[in-house]
Amino acid sequence: MAIEQKFIERIMNGERIAVARGISLIENEHPSANNLLKQLYPHTGKAYRIGITGPPGAGKSTITNKLAKLYRTQNKRVGIIAVDPTSPFTGGALLGDRVRMTDVELDEGVFIRSMASRGSLGGLSKKTKEAADVFDAAGYDFVLFETVGVGQSELDIVRAVDTTVVVLVPESGDSIQAMKAGLMEIADFFVVNKSDRPGSEQAVMSIKMVLQFKHPADGWQPEVIKATANDGKGIDEIASMIDSHREFLLKNNRLQVKRKERTIERVRELVNDKLHVDFWNDEREQMLTSYIENVLSGKSTPYDLATTLLNVQM
Amino acid sequence: MAIEQKFIERIMNGERIAVARGISLIENEHPSANNLLKQLYPHTGKAYRIGITGPPGAGKSTITNKLAKLYRTQNKRVGIIAVDPTSPFTGGALLGDRVRMTDVELDEGVFIRSMASRGSLGGLSKKTKEAADVFDAAGYDFVLFETVGVGQSELDIVRAVDTTVVVLVPESGDSIQAMKAGLMEIADFFVVNKSDRPGSEQAVMSIKMVLQFKHPADGWQPEVIKATANDGKGIDEIASMIDSHREFLLKNNRLQVKRKERTIERVRELVNDKLHVDFWNDEREQMLTSYIENVLSGKSTPYDLATTLLNVQM
Repeated sequence: MAIEQKFIERIMNGERIAVARGISLIENEHPSANNLLKQLYPHTGKAYRIGITGPPGAGKSTITNKLAKLYRTQNKRVGIIAVDPTSPFTGGALLGDRVRMTDVELDEGVFIRSMASRGSLGGLSKKTKEAADVFDAAGYDFVLFETVGVGQSELDIVRAVDTTVVVLVPESGDSIQAMKAGLMEIADFFVVNKSDRPGSEQAVMSIKMVLQFKHPADGWQPEVIKATANDGKGIDEIASMIDSHREFLLKNNRLQVKRKERTIERVRELVNDKLHVDFWNDEREQMLTSYIENVLSGKSTPYDLATTLLNVQM
Repeated sequence: MAIEQKFIERIMNGERIAVARGISLIENEHPSANNLLKQLYPHTGKAYRIGITGPPGAGKSTITNKLAKLYRTQNKRVGIIAVDPTSPFTGGALLGDRVRMTDVELDEGVFIRSMASRGSLGGLSKKTKEAADVFDAAGYDFVLFETVGVGQSELDIVRAVDTTVVVLVPESGDSIQAMKAGLMEIADFFVVNKSDRPGSEQAVMSIKMVLQFKHPADGWQPEVIKATANDGKGIDEIASMIDSHREFLLKNNRLQVKRKERTIERVRELVNDKLHVDFWNDEREQMLTSYIENVLSGKSTPYDLATTLLNVQM
């Protein structure tokens, strides 16, 4: 479906209403979404993408919020994509959490977009990456992805960013859980948030202990930062660690490698989506619905039915 | 690839070594896996499938463990599939957690299988469901899925079970986080574990409060059970709640509906997998690798490249 050139220009001029509409087209899987993305694509590649991840309640939203504010003082524009189902950014917010975000939400240089994983049948990570492309083409300097650091689709999102920050709290076992949950592999650095609570020093030590055994292939050694984001403590350190990592990636050609991998992944997703859409036409959907009874009654198996569907000529 | 009839029979006789090998074929995506599953399929449908989910550290493994022991006293056989990356069942275990499981692991009537989500490029939920089919055909009465209750692939697994138990702890905000994380929608009942800790009564109350607003379409009203699984408290209640839910599903024809939906999903997955395998042959992989440079240099876009790949005749 055609996209008006004027709409593209309005996005590239950073008009909020056009950016919002662009992301909505993606979120709603509008027929024109791919065409939009195709036209925006040549104008992407400038935004720096940061993932803020960790268990629920670790304070990811607060850190995201304060980091956005800090970037605003540097006159940078910030797009935020909240895919954490427990985030106050998302629709699922309860008990007035949302209020906390109002100050950055009112800032014209910050754009917050919630994308719910609830009820989503996959495809969420693809959509968040596409939303980031809209921000990128619209001239946002940073795109922050706030995600819960457990589960496959979250790891997919992490693969889509340049720098991944893993946020933990000092509470018992949290850091050990993180190690086990595979966060060790994805973290470019750790933040122990709420570090005014008891046990923060032990948490830092235990993460550092495990990090000793990590010999990263690319030569980047993750560090641990203490923060109390509610009081704004540690935010400067987080921002400068992100800067250091970015410089490291640039110097070692890693940013290009990451972006190449990401682009390959994007092409694969586009192809696979199209294969599904083309295959599952009305006729095949109807065949599935009627033939499934044979499987349920034991006359056939899912494996036979899949073969039948794949072999039918139409 | 052919599967010997004898191997099928050994699985159906419940021989541990054959069950283990069957699941390994699935996990390693061996060419004969689908053929095996196809032959086992007519012998499935008897095992009851239970999901035990919740945030890391809630005590899901302990509950799974004790529930398995209880079923053993009833002379039932139990297959356990641990897909929680933080579970002591899985390879990621640290600090001797694994030791805790030894007593059930040594029981011939319990079979524990860890399936790691780490590094998995999707497909995990499909594999766990297939592993459950092996247990089912091998005559296991119960299959317990232990998963972390956040993230898309975990929700996929939950869709694959008959009864979903959501395990929480009394700690601050945990129950609220659960509500936000969409666990409300998937829980057939809640367990507040570690209920000897402060705040357990409030946690129960706050879950019940939110549950008041839930008007389930199927008429089943989720309840809240207090447990201290470490001391074995609450396990009987959990087992009888599972029984009640099972009876409810049977009486209302819901079990059949669930299993139909599950079978439809299975057929879709099989078809989509085959579409991918057929499409991504060596030639197309090579095209992707060489043409990606045009995208990276700005001469093309991922959207154009996807179209090119889809249109090429071979």
